[in-house]
Amino acid sequence: MEKIKGLIDAPFTPMLANGDVNPEPIPAYAAMLAKNGLKGVFINGSSGEGYMLTTDERMMLAEKWIEAAPQGFKVIVHVGSCCLRESARLAAHAAEIGAWGIGAMAPPFPKIGRIEELVKYCEAIASAAPQLPYYYYHIPAFNGAFLPMIELLKAVDGRIPNFAGIKYTFESLYEYNQCRLYDDGKFDMLHGQDETILPSLAQGGAQGGIGGTTNYNGRELVGIIEAWERGDLETAREKQNFSQAVINVICNYRGNIVGGKRIMKLIGLDLGPNRVPFRNMTDEEERAMKAELDAIGFFERCNRF
Amino acid sequence: MEKIKGLIDAPFTPMLANGDVNPEPIPAYAAMLAKNGLKGVFINGSSGEGYMLTTDERMMLAEKWIEAAPQGFKVIVHVGSCCLRESARLAAHAAEIGAWGIGAMAPPFPKIGRIEELVKYCEAIASAAPQLPYYYYHIPAFNGAFLPMIELLKAVDGRIPNFAGIKYTFESLYEYNQCRLYDDGKFDMLHGQDETILPSLAQGGAQGGIGGTTNYNGRELVGIIEAWERGDLETAREKQNFSQAVINVICNYRGNIVGGKRIMKLIGLDLGPNRVPFRNMTDEEERAMKAELDAIGFFERCNRF
Amino acid sequence: MEKIKGLIDAPFTPMLANGDVNPEPIPAYAAMLAKNGLKGVFINGSSGEGYMLTTDERMMLAEKWIEAAPQGFKVIVHVGSCCLRESARLAAHAAEIGAWGIGAMAPPFPKIGRIEELVKYCEAIASAAPQLPYYYYHIPAFNGAFLPMIELLKAVDGRIPNFAGIKYTFESLYEYNQCRLYDDGKFDMLHGQDETILPSLAQGGAQGGIGGTTNYNGRELVGIIEAWERGDLETAREKQNFSQAVINVICNYRGNIVGGKRIMKLIGLDLGPNRVPFRNMTDEEERAMKAELDAIGFFERCNRF
Amino acid sequence: MEKIKGLIDAPFTPMLANGDVNPEPIPAYAAMLAKNGLKGVFINGSSGEGYMLTTDERMMLAEKWIEAAPQGFKVIVHVGSCCLRESARLAAHAAEIGAWGIGAMAPPFPKIGRIEELVKYCEAIASAAPQLPYYYYHIPAFNGAFLPMIELLKAVDGRIPNFAGIKYTFESLYEYNQCRLYDDGKFDMLHGQDETILPSLAQGGAQGGIGGTTNYNGRELVGIIEAWERGDLETAREKQNFSQAVINVICNYRGNIVGGKRIMKLIGLDLGPNRVPFRNMTDEEERAMKAELDAIGFFERCNRF
Repeated sequence: MEKIKGLIDAPFTPMLANGDVNPEPIPAYAAMLAKNGLKGVFINGSSGEGYMLTTDERMMLAEKWIEAAPQGFKVIVHVGSCCLRESARLAAHAAEIGAWGIGAMAPPFPKIGRIEELVKYCEAIASAAPQLPYYYYHIPAFNGAFLPMIELLKAVDGRIPNFAGIKYTFESLYEYNQCRLYDDGKFDMLHGQDETILPSLAQGGAQGGIGGTTNYNGRELVGIIEAWERGDLETAREKQNFSQAVINVICNYRGNIVGGKRIMKLIGLDLGPNRVPFRNMTDEEERAMKAELDAIGFFERCNRF
Repeated sequence: MEKIKGLIDAPFTPMLANGDVNPEPIPAYAAMLAKNGLKGVFINGSSGEGYMLTTDERMMLAEKWIEAAPQGFKVIVHVGSCCLRESARLAAHAAEIGAWGIGAMAPPFPKIGRIEELVKYCEAIASAAPQLPYYYYHIPAFNGAFLPMIELLKAVDGRIPNFAGIKYTFESLYEYNQCRLYDDGKFDMLHGQDETILPSLAQGGAQGGIGGTTNYNGRELVGIIEAWERGDLETAREKQNFSQAVINVICNYRGNIVGGKRIMKLIGLDLGPNRVPFRNMTDEEERAMKAELDAIGFFERCNRF
Repeated sequence: MEKIKGLIDAPFTPMLANGDVNPEPIPAYAAMLAKNGLKGVFINGSSGEGYMLTTDERMMLAEKWIEAAPQGFKVIVHVGSCCLRESARLAAHAAEIGAWGIGAMAPPFPKIGRIEELVKYCEAIASAAPQLPYYYYHIPAFNGAFLPMIELLKAVDGRIPNFAGIKYTFESLYEYNQCRLYDDGKFDMLHGQDETILPSLAQGGAQGGIGGTTNYNGRELVGIIEAWERGDLETAREKQNFSQAVINVICNYRGNIVGGKRIMKLIGLDLGPNRVPFRNMTDEEERAMKAELDAIGFFERCNRF
Repeated sequence: MEKIKGLIDAPFTPMLANGDVNPEPIPAYAAMLAKNGLKGVFINGSSGEGYMLTTDERMMLAEKWIEAAPQGFKVIVHVGSCCLRESARLAAHAAEIGAWGIGAMAPPFPKIGRIEELVKYCEAIASAAPQLPYYYYHIPAFNGAFLPMIELLKAVDGRIPNFAGIKYTFESLYEYNQCRLYDDGKFDMLHGQDETILPSLAQGGAQGGIGGTTNYNGRELVGIIEAWERGDLETAREKQNFSQAVINVICNYRGNIVGGKRIMKLIGLDLGPNRVPFRNMTDEEERAMKAELDAIGFFERCNRF
């Protein structure tokens, strides 16, 4: 199976002030991401508030992103939900409309406690779009599925033919590396934390990743990989440190889903509010965040249109 | 607002072997529950695998239960989901078709961390069915919303007009009692753990409850309340101890959702399998469970048709 | 083995302003507790900051309490620590100086994850004082030992001859009752949460308990049991509700160890500060707490000298 | 303040079959560690079962290690405990006998919940040995002190003069790097996870570390740093992968404290059993572990005497 190289972006879902999904900015959004070096999008995931969207909204968004995607720009559709039948429907739909791949995190309810449960969950979804690569999205802080990923790989190997790999959003670079080494790199391990791209590269392999802060800081994050590949360690470190400084700021504003979505407005693409139960940023918070970003020189280095 | 007296049952969702929802047993199911002393049903909740059902399935089930409900038998529809717009749609539908009330647990994703988030979540749902009583379903072990319920009551008081009370499925009888005492008993606190009905009664008040083991052990659980009310403490204790013995058995078989649903088959109402990711019981497990239930004399005391 | 009836108090450790242990108030303390209906003390436990005391301090305190104990007033010495050899030494010392019994909670480090580990820990301590009853002190919120207590009882039964029972400080009245019923009440289950004495009595048995708020609210807590035994449910409820109101207050001041210890000063027995890392109450906090206690009429009902 | 370069070892505590501490192997142990490239030891920590030792045993061990230490070989004494007065005594003793430095993890009981509590705890210990560098040992998985380390650095900066830095045993390389960058590298951040030495080096800085698997795999771990420093990335990666393979094995045998201590016997230095509540390895487990180590070629690459 093809492995992803470079960084895939996890976009936010554009919304109107009343909370309705607003597909209008998607073409400009896709073009901007491609221009800044991103290789594709992983839509309707956690950054995209996928769990807070209706099935119809999720399908509509998938269609709009695929329409808007430039040549060679991958659209991976997150189809995870608590209801497997909805997820299977979303997976089949993604295949029909020409998505490059699909992904799903473990359901937060009921909480997955065993590998066998997780395998069955993945299997039901993957088999609904057998022609597409399926990525398991490992983000246990969000759904409590703190399971050993090596065991998942062993369990799906030979059982789920289109299991492509894991979007790994967890701190253990040790486990990440072990998964990467599994069966000579059989599976595609997508690094999922923008704050540690450089350390992950040091461990080895031509790696792909999926990021959330790539939405506004993609040039610098792509730059880490480029610098590393040409052997320029100092630049790679400087860019990684800068990227952590950006993350330090969003951590003061309820993280990427809330703070990061608001940064998009500050760089010129207003994507509207977050859905309940997220607490939207106030105008005062926005001003304070802008000042923090100014202080680290963010607006000189951020993504451009 | 009317307070619920007696026990409401949280029914399982009948399914065919292929996992499709099967409404056919619902009339017999409703009649059986009423015959055994239950006062209504709380459908599409955790026992009903509500989060694992599609919106259409949830609506269809609500319609079937309301059609099947005997005179005076309350149908409360659980409408909680990760997507507030789906929940609001379910709430409005419940009102349209004549449900007695609605309820919703906190979403497991994104995890609710603040009372203010929870209030907004409840508000959005309750306001979609303003003519119906709305119950918050507190079950933090399932969704991680370990928040102080007294603070929720204070926050909704005067803000959500149709907030009726809490289905309280947590171990703290102290917190439960404090909520019960709030503003002279303003809110309807429904006890939500069948294993501690008697201790809860001792704390005071004419209490209602919602149970999961009432599906098969309702006669005995109703009997606890009746014995307590006529001052027969010994009988109440004996029945509470018996009910705990039944719960001991289901704890050996993955709890009420899995083990309890299978008990329904053993007492004469086959409700089919659980949905993935639940692990269904094997036939061997079923035999072992039946033997454990036999050993405590369950089949002489269980619900009857 | 003898079972404890009535309430045992978990005293605070008196300290000087510089943090030194101060044995001087102990005789007055013991006399006050006995006068207010307490049947003994469980010293050097969590209320007594036992883990924060040196072994020498713990031994000295045990000696002082035994000297001060009125006739028939039980002194149970908590000897738990992370170092089993210290615990065994404390256990042997307790036996030498005439303690009535000993107890130990699970060590918080290393975290106990298996019943077998817990049994070995209990065994090593109990066997160091084989002539004394040994109580396991179950308080998993403090040490992470969330293990099923029925399994502990099964494992120690026939293996640790002087295992007397469990001081059960956890919310599950279901599990508490199951342990109480084990082998016709073979073990002494001491109820360990003052906020739920009445619900626990309703479940049955002539129960003993160990309390922390008994230090200042013992008359009312003893009164719950007395009212229940004479069939006066209304008084029992009123006193339990009052006792919860007292607990509501201390929860605003970092709980019993911090807030409760300061209440002792307010009722006439200054026991000094808490040890680091506890945050001692400020004078302003003390005034605010006093006002809250006044508002519920606490000082008319509290323990007397 | 001097910063540590290279790797410090966290030794196991040698014990006799009856569980008594056995100082006899210490000179050979120290010489072996120095020979294999280690720069010192961090004694009586988690690998050394420090919390399970009496104060007298801890002092005796400190004396023996200092006596046995080759020229320039640093002895850092872990003095953390639940009882600050014991810890202060251990700190003062370490200073008296010529330790190079001291360290302490947060107490597991009472659980530290606030930075201010942690600062007070560190302050009380550090001030008992003001002439020695004090390291905070961050290992939240063991004691629940999941606090932001940047906040700790800010809080101690200018307040605890001999606060040297942090032994950082947690997965977040992002937080580790942020602490490393704090005030131009003011504090000494010791990397504390042997499985991610290479990724940590990639982030920058001439870093020191403290390891547990260095006891038997120190040559390879030291080799990672050496290879990195001479620009030999392939060797660094191969050695890091090998070191992860070793860790994979010990994870099958209850981790480094249990499995790792037994490896010492296999490489020629029998250090005896673990203390209760650790479950010691059976002979069968030892054979199985040996086979797993053989399979990865461990005995050709392990530490030598």
